[in-house]
Amino acid sequence: MGFSFSSRINVERFWHTIERSSEIGRGREGGLSRLALSDEDKEIRDVFVAWCREAGLTVTIDQVGNIFGRREGQDNSLPPVLMGSHLDTQANGGRFDGIVGVLGPLEVIRSLNDLDHVTRRPIEIVNWTNEEGARFSPPMTASGCFAGTYPLDWVHQRMGDDGTTFGVELRRIGYLGEAAVGGRELDAYFELHIEQGPVLDAEKVQVGVVTHAYSSHGFLVEFNGETAHAGPCAMERRRNALIAAARLLVAVDDLGWEYAATGGKGTGARLAAWPNRAGILSDWAQAVCDVRHNDPGAAAVMAERVRRAVGEAAARAGCTAEILDRWDWGGMIFDLGMVAEIRRQASALGYTQRDLPSQAGHDAYFLARVCPTAMIFTPCRDGITHNNNELATPEDLEPGLNVLLHSVVARADR
Amino acid sequence: MGFSFSSRINVERFWHTIERSSEIGRGREGGLSRLALSDEDKEIRDVFVAWCREAGLTVTIDQVGNIFGRREGQDNSLPPVLMGSHLDTQANGGRFDGIVGVLGPLEVIRSLNDLDHVTRRPIEIVNWTNEEGARFSPPMTASGCFAGTYPLDWVHQRMGDDGTTFGVELRRIGYLGEAAVGGRELDAYFELHIEQGPVLDAEKVQVGVVTHAYSSHGFLVEFNGETAHAGPCAMERRRNALIAAARLLVAVDDLGWEYAATGGKGTGARLAAWPNRAGILSDWAQAVCDVRHNDPGAAAVMAERVRRAVGEAAARAGCTAEILDRWDWGGMIFDLGMVAEIRRQASALGYTQRDLPSQAGHDAYFLARVCPTAMIFTPCRDGITHNNNELATPEDLEPGLNVLLHSVVARADR
Repeated sequence: MGFSFSSRINVERFWHTIERSSEIGRGREGGLSRLALSDEDKEIRDVFVAWCREAGLTVTIDQVGNIFGRREGQDNSLPPVLMGSHLDTQANGGRFDGIVGVLGPLEVIRSLNDLDHVTRRPIEIVNWTNEEGARFSPPMTASGCFAGTYPLDWVHQRMGDDGTTFGVELRRIGYLGEAAVGGRELDAYFELHIEQGPVLDAEKVQVGVVTHAYSSHGFLVEFNGETAHAGPCAMERRRNALIAAARLLVAVDDLGWEYAATGGKGTGARLAAWPNRAGILSDWAQAVCDVRHNDPGAAAVMAERVRRAVGEAAARAGCTAEILDRWDWGGMIFDLGMVAEIRRQASALGYTQRDLPSQAGHDAYFLARVCPTAMIFTPCRDGITHNNNELATPEDLEPGLNVLLHSVVARADR
Repeated sequence: MGFSFSSRINVERFWHTIERSSEIGRGREGGLSRLALSDEDKEIRDVFVAWCREAGLTVTIDQVGNIFGRREGQDNSLPPVLMGSHLDTQANGGRFDGIVGVLGPLEVIRSLNDLDHVTRRPIEIVNWTNEEGARFSPPMTASGCFAGTYPLDWVHQRMGDDGTTFGVELRRIGYLGEAAVGGRELDAYFELHIEQGPVLDAEKVQVGVVTHAYSSHGFLVEFNGETAHAGPCAMERRRNALIAAARLLVAVDDLGWEYAATGGKGTGARLAAWPNRAGILSDWAQAVCDVRHNDPGAAAVMAERVRRAVGEAAARAGCTAEILDRWDWGGMIFDLGMVAEIRRQASALGYTQRDLPSQAGHDAYFLARVCPTAMIFTPCRDGITHNNNELATPEDLEPGLNVLLHSVVARADR
């Protein structure tokens, strides 16, 4: 017994936890629809908490519903090494996005238990609330709150599509904890995640070493106009908020195409309008869009172009516009020492590896603001994600899990 | 007693019925939200049927829920003169659109009762189901069915935003009648309506003689794509149905502006998408749009351009598109004899009048396919309609009502 170079996680046990998770909040064939703070989210949280306790972890829930499971070390006066991700999914989500980064760490803990290895520093695992932002804007709300970017009250007031708020739903499902959000020292944060892009799968590379993150700028925009008849109302008199929002989303899509050659993205993600019915012009519309680029300077230019497009779309449609919310993340380079450690472990374990940036949003971006942080990517089939056909096999995930195990122990034992 | 040149409707009594109607399905301040086949629609129908019976009319309900109230004439072997419009409203509707054309005829009947005047031909009044199309596409569903344009089963299968169908909702509110829809001879059809445009109000003209109707072409379009992550998914791989729909609505709006100088209109009225959330591309979207022009040839060109824009929007967004439904109306000239009669009566009664076209959709367009048809417009403030601020005063409405009374009697007594 004891931890050694030959120690490995138990991929079969890990896979069983993935299969159990895949039963909760089933969506379309093969996928999940487990929106943050829904009944389904409560169910997976309950299961996760039970698993944590079975593994001997001390469970703490904070005031934004983040669930921490702590394994004591030899010196508990030292800040813990943290690993985690999220258990919530998109409305048409897969079984792996986020989930691998919570249940993988659980498997790391179970493996350390099997080995009877007590690390020098304590180790914690975490499930962050509402990473997806599919129900409440912005995404990564609760890790952002943990990092001190979003105030607690503001997070509780976030309103979902259905008119409910983050705080009310958090209390409803029983996960409004008492622990303060953040404000404590962490030794390091590791996040394991499927790539959500096609590179590792296409190149048959086993481990992705995430060096840095794309800069992303998101916008929640509201347009106000006036209802009128779709027939007699002259074009010059129209104040159709639906058209203002549609013009903004098209402008953002055009912007994405303009920057496509350098890997830029522009996304129209959401459009809601009222009354939004045949025969009448809408007097209210809401749009959610974002731009992303590997180069923070280019991303900033794109964001400024979006800001201008908001005004142009509103003016063209005779409406007023207000940017209700903006979120900006990424653009950082992960901790060089941790990235080097991941490379070293992947190499020592004999896995093929490559460096790559992360293009999606991840809780790790906020954690990078408060402690040394790094991410490990695993392959996923054809890069398909936010889709019920998202797929990663045990073979795809095992290398990343073992790199996580060894990197975390190296960090926690130093 | 008896009907004479000096006979007039009772505007106070008429206004009381308008005020009672204005209490049912209240929407925003001063407006109504009385969607077809809703509980509120049932309530106004019940009140209307009671009023018809109190006025001595025989009430018949057909298989699409149209409510007819019949007043026998001296020779009941002759086809009846029909007047009517609709009691349903938009989600942000006013108190007059359609309603004046149902409760006005009720007042005509009550006035004839007061006068003890029995016309030679029978007279009927009607409330057509789902004129607005705000809940079920297309608009004027039930008058279209009456005219033989839409098959009965097809009408019953129309699905609303909430997943319910026309037929199920019709039965639920108790207005699935037994009478055959249409297929009977009518002597003539009169429809009284607020102008829904600013002309009469701006020119201080009391009576609008509607000579013809704008050609309108409506489209219900569905786009299908694929969900994917708003971050890593390359622009070239995206199949965002929300963007396809937004591009179509912008193209239709652009088309409206292109034809604005000649009074053309292009309207994006509805956009729905799924999942329609931050962080994910939508794989399904639906758009409702229409184009209208005074010149049927120009309208046909606009419609063809919309059809092409559907394909272009889909191709640009990597999606497939299907036009699920199309509706075409208007483009006709109203019956010259009836139009002349309306002009004559307005003149005899000493009202100011002017000819003008109708730009909105009206049940009269379908009735024109089966019998001589004409419309009378009344002023409404600043042309505001499909809006809670829609306003017409008793003074605005009285001239049109008296022209209706005299025109109908002239027609029914001939």
